[in-house]
Amino acid sequence: MNLTSETASALLYGPDKQGLVAQVSGWIFKHGGNIIHADQHRDAEEGIFFQRVEWAPPPSEIETQMAEFTAMAQELGMKVRVSRSSKKPNVAIFVSRAAHCFHDIILRWKTGEFNGEIACVISNHDSLREATEGYNLPFFHIPIDPKNKLEAEKEQLEILKNHKVDLVILARYMQILSAGMLEKMGCPAINIHHSFLPAFAGARPYHQAYQRGVKIIGVTAHYVSAELDGGPIIQQEVTHVNHRHGVSDLMRKGRDLEKAVLAQAVRWHLENRILVYNNKTVVFD
Amino acid sequence: MNLTSETASALLYGPDKQGLVAQVSGWIFKHGGNIIHADQHRDAEEGIFFQRVEWAPPPSEIETQMAEFTAMAQELGMKVRVSRSSKKPNVAIFVSRAAHCFHDIILRWKTGEFNGEIACVISNHDSLREATEGYNLPFFHIPIDPKNKLEAEKEQLEILKNHKVDLVILARYMQILSAGMLEKMGCPAINIHHSFLPAFAGARPYHQAYQRGVKIIGVTAHYVSAELDGGPIIQQEVTHVNHRHGVSDLMRKGRDLEKAVLAQAVRWHLENRILVYNNKTVVFD
Amino acid sequence: MNLTSETASALLYGPDKQGLVAQVSGWIFKHGGNIIHADQHRDAEEGIFFQRVEWAPPPSEIETQMAEFTAMAQELGMKVRVSRSSKKPNVAIFVSRAAHCFHDIILRWKTGEFNGEIACVISNHDSLREATEGYNLPFFHIPIDPKNKLEAEKEQLEILKNHKVDLVILARYMQILSAGMLEKMGCPAINIHHSFLPAFAGARPYHQAYQRGVKIIGVTAHYVSAELDGGPIIQQEVTHVNHRHGVSDLMRKGRDLEKAVLAQAVRWHLENRILVYNNKTVVFD
Amino acid sequence: MNLTSETASALLYGPDKQGLVAQVSGWIFKHGGNIIHADQHRDAEEGIFFQRVEWAPPPSEIETQMAEFTAMAQELGMKVRVSRSSKKPNVAIFVSRAAHCFHDIILRWKTGEFNGEIACVISNHDSLREATEGYNLPFFHIPIDPKNKLEAEKEQLEILKNHKVDLVILARYMQILSAGMLEKMGCPAINIHHSFLPAFAGARPYHQAYQRGVKIIGVTAHYVSAELDGGPIIQQEVTHVNHRHGVSDLMRKGRDLEKAVLAQAVRWHLENRILVYNNKTVVFD
Repeated sequence: MNLTSETASALLYGPDKQGLVAQVSGWIFKHGGNIIHADQHRDAEEGIFFQRVEWAPPPSEIETQMAEFTAMAQELGMKVRVSRSSKKPNVAIFVSRAAHCFHDIILRWKTGEFNGEIACVISNHDSLREATEGYNLPFFHIPIDPKNKLEAEKEQLEILKNHKVDLVILARYMQILSAGMLEKMGCPAINIHHSFLPAFAGARPYHQAYQRGVKIIGVTAHYVSAELDGGPIIQQEVTHVNHRHGVSDLMRKGRDLEKAVLAQAVRWHLENRILVYNNKTVVFD
Repeated sequence: MNLTSETASALLYGPDKQGLVAQVSGWIFKHGGNIIHADQHRDAEEGIFFQRVEWAPPPSEIETQMAEFTAMAQELGMKVRVSRSSKKPNVAIFVSRAAHCFHDIILRWKTGEFNGEIACVISNHDSLREATEGYNLPFFHIPIDPKNKLEAEKEQLEILKNHKVDLVILARYMQILSAGMLEKMGCPAINIHHSFLPAFAGARPYHQAYQRGVKIIGVTAHYVSAELDGGPIIQQEVTHVNHRHGVSDLMRKGRDLEKAVLAQAVRWHLENRILVYNNKTVVFD
Repeated sequence: MNLTSETASALLYGPDKQGLVAQVSGWIFKHGGNIIHADQHRDAEEGIFFQRVEWAPPPSEIETQMAEFTAMAQELGMKVRVSRSSKKPNVAIFVSRAAHCFHDIILRWKTGEFNGEIACVISNHDSLREATEGYNLPFFHIPIDPKNKLEAEKEQLEILKNHKVDLVILARYMQILSAGMLEKMGCPAINIHHSFLPAFAGARPYHQAYQRGVKIIGVTAHYVSAELDGGPIIQQEVTHVNHRHGVSDLMRKGRDLEKAVLAQAVRWHLENRILVYNNKTVVFD
Repeated sequence: MNLTSETASALLYGPDKQGLVAQVSGWIFKHGGNIIHADQHRDAEEGIFFQRVEWAPPPSEIETQMAEFTAMAQELGMKVRVSRSSKKPNVAIFVSRAAHCFHDIILRWKTGEFNGEIACVISNHDSLREATEGYNLPFFHIPIDPKNKLEAEKEQLEILKNHKVDLVILARYMQILSAGMLEKMGCPAINIHHSFLPAFAGARPYHQAYQRGVKIIGVTAHYVSAELDGGPIIQQEVTHVNHRHGVSDLMRKGRDLEKAVLAQAVRWHLENRILVYNNKTVVFD
């Protein structure tokens, strides 16, 4: 089999019933497709079946198969999303002053780590304009203050629309996206929060952690929802600290975690590996 | 579906070809089985397909289905091993003087962590007789010295046969099983080696690690093969050390790793989750 | 120098000022002592100096030196606690039904991992009587219900007093010690909480963690204070989980963490390595 | 005390004897210095005493105190190295084609994470010229082939001399520095090797790791010595892998480790925290 040919990948979930694996894999086999990766999960408590399946259809039939697969899955009572590997999602990076996640995401993208394209950078400060333009990416400075927030978000939405953005990355963006903005965006946003949620939600988590005297600090990548730091968790990572570490040490150690965990979450999302259900994620790694 | 009904689980592998997932899951569906867990892996380099599938057959047909499934998989060109959940494998623990893994395995077994039964304890020292008998388990003291090794192994083989042992656990057993013994045993052995292999194979790995000045130490659970510490690796774990840690600290920290990693490897094996190929393992966790 | 001779160890803290290291080490040198270990920490924000120093005094003078050292440190404005290595603290284990930490602590003690003696086991259930007595330790069954709590605690206090207990270990003891009990105990208590505090304080933390969909779970060893799960944190550890792990998997994985982290905290305490200040700990590892 | 005033820091080691802590700290106290950080270690086996002490001398006397401290320590039989915080060491980065450590080091330097200055970048390829110059740093392209190696190293030595380089960082530089070069350099070199040494020394360690089927991969930062990958280990870190990870996944996961561990080793070195003895390191963290 030719591993370089284009693939379709589907994420589906719905009420569990007998024979789902057989029906999905049988459909692909019957249509001349070759399964590259298949993984499934049952939530025994809720009686829900989750699946990710990636297959190589006969090259000329990929669009047709994507449509027909969707119809087949829906008949089985499943919610389904199918995408093709040649379609690279467009990504917008939102950033404030802290630059480490910003550089990290862009350098990984240049190395080819992500199945996506960076379309633009939006910031409430102007400080990363030169760096962004040095990377040959468009930079938009949209200052935010309590009075202009609605208008600023309108501007942001316009930019996302113009760049056909499929995913927003909040790369240490220190503003909250309003519920209205989230609704109108029409695409998910991934945020990196600098604590192991649900501990230390909200502002200045490293200061909170220092104050409490914890022996581990962590970070959390999650989808943004209307509830602050309450969206579905995609990935978390931690590191040990001790009494010798002041707040600035926590910040320095945390930056390394933030970069790695945000990148991991973005990579999974762009490879169509994450299903969200009941405010939790199923990650088909 | 009734999750408490008995299940069959199969581990299979062979040359990759189109439709394997569909054929296996289709067969189960057609025979009224319900897939509980299915996971597969392709080694793209070698062109090998690996699968673990666990399903609930109609209760009265389990033995028939196991036989028929085996035949079907063999027809697909696969090597296959099928087992049923009601069959608890018998385990023999080999131990020397260090008792931590010995107690740990037995206490976990009593908690119900393992899908198996401890059949007996064999040791080249008599020091754990009382503890073993306190757990109501048979204890066999078989001293080993270079001159009596062959005879001692013959005794061990006799005990394994009498207790219908399906798995040998070397729980810090400080003797090497001869190639002849391994061949005659007719069942696999899992060893815990106290280094992150392939570093520090052989004797006194903590001393070797201290000497080299490493900043992490580790342990490795592996299937025993004729090559010393060279068998397929099942699981590894490490912990950080620094210049303040002497050899005895490495030993103390290592004991915690040894217990956890050996138990993990044994649990996976007893749940029929490990496939060995090319001196490596595929673990369907 | 003879490393096997008896040592004195002091934990001291107070307002930072110039020359403290010199004065403490100079005092020991002048009195013929030999420093085995010295570690200090400055909390720059609070202006507090913390130190642990362990030294070998001339054997016949150890009691005198302990008294004189205490006086010297107090003159420097320090709070100080001095202990000698030959004095093994007495430990009481409080346990309910879950037995893993109970067995783990006792087996480590038998291996010589702890600088202390287990004096007795107290439980609100009778289920571990046989196991305790198998270890040749006294077992006290003191049932607790809302109505008899005060009386039950009175009984517990009596036992602690009779056994001259210096440290209480709550080894998954599922009852809350009342503020009054804590006050009257006259010795600290170390608890193992099965979450990475401050997340998931209170009851059923693994269920809370499962519900929130976190990707790491953790455990916390802390000194018990009147605020539930709010005392000074001694040590924390975590492990990764994913969507495949149900609540019972979290519990199983958590048990390994609970054993290791509780043992670590107890070891440090018994070696006189922990200073508490501002509801945080300084651990001189 | 004014924490922003300049400090001196000393690393010293030699035969252990009574009163060393007292004499060193007493000397600093007597000379009006204020100890900011002091840490010591005894190698009980070898009878060696190691210490790092950092203090704030009266500002006008720092150079005098550094000289006098050195003399005092030598009289105590110690080897000693003293440096002052205002002196930022000059660093040269050696790099080949892989750019991740190169960018990472420079971006951390720009964030102020390192107590040093990057003086120049030397590469055996020309591919990072533009990026280096975009960072406003001098770039030297010195191709290496077996025939010109001696001459190339001569050129490199000339550049190191001209830029008064105090530390060489091999940021995934794929050439071996000759023993002669190491000798003439007059400054240490830190290398990042992409395996958990001593496993998989030499070429293509990720391929070696994949071949052996290990379940963890790691990286090692070490001082370069004449023995390939045999120098004193400064720091190591690992991550878990499984059968799903191909060589390219190991490389991707490894890159994150390489960046973090190399940066950690460089930070410690530049803060004068590392003592080398018997081909091992003592890191006063």
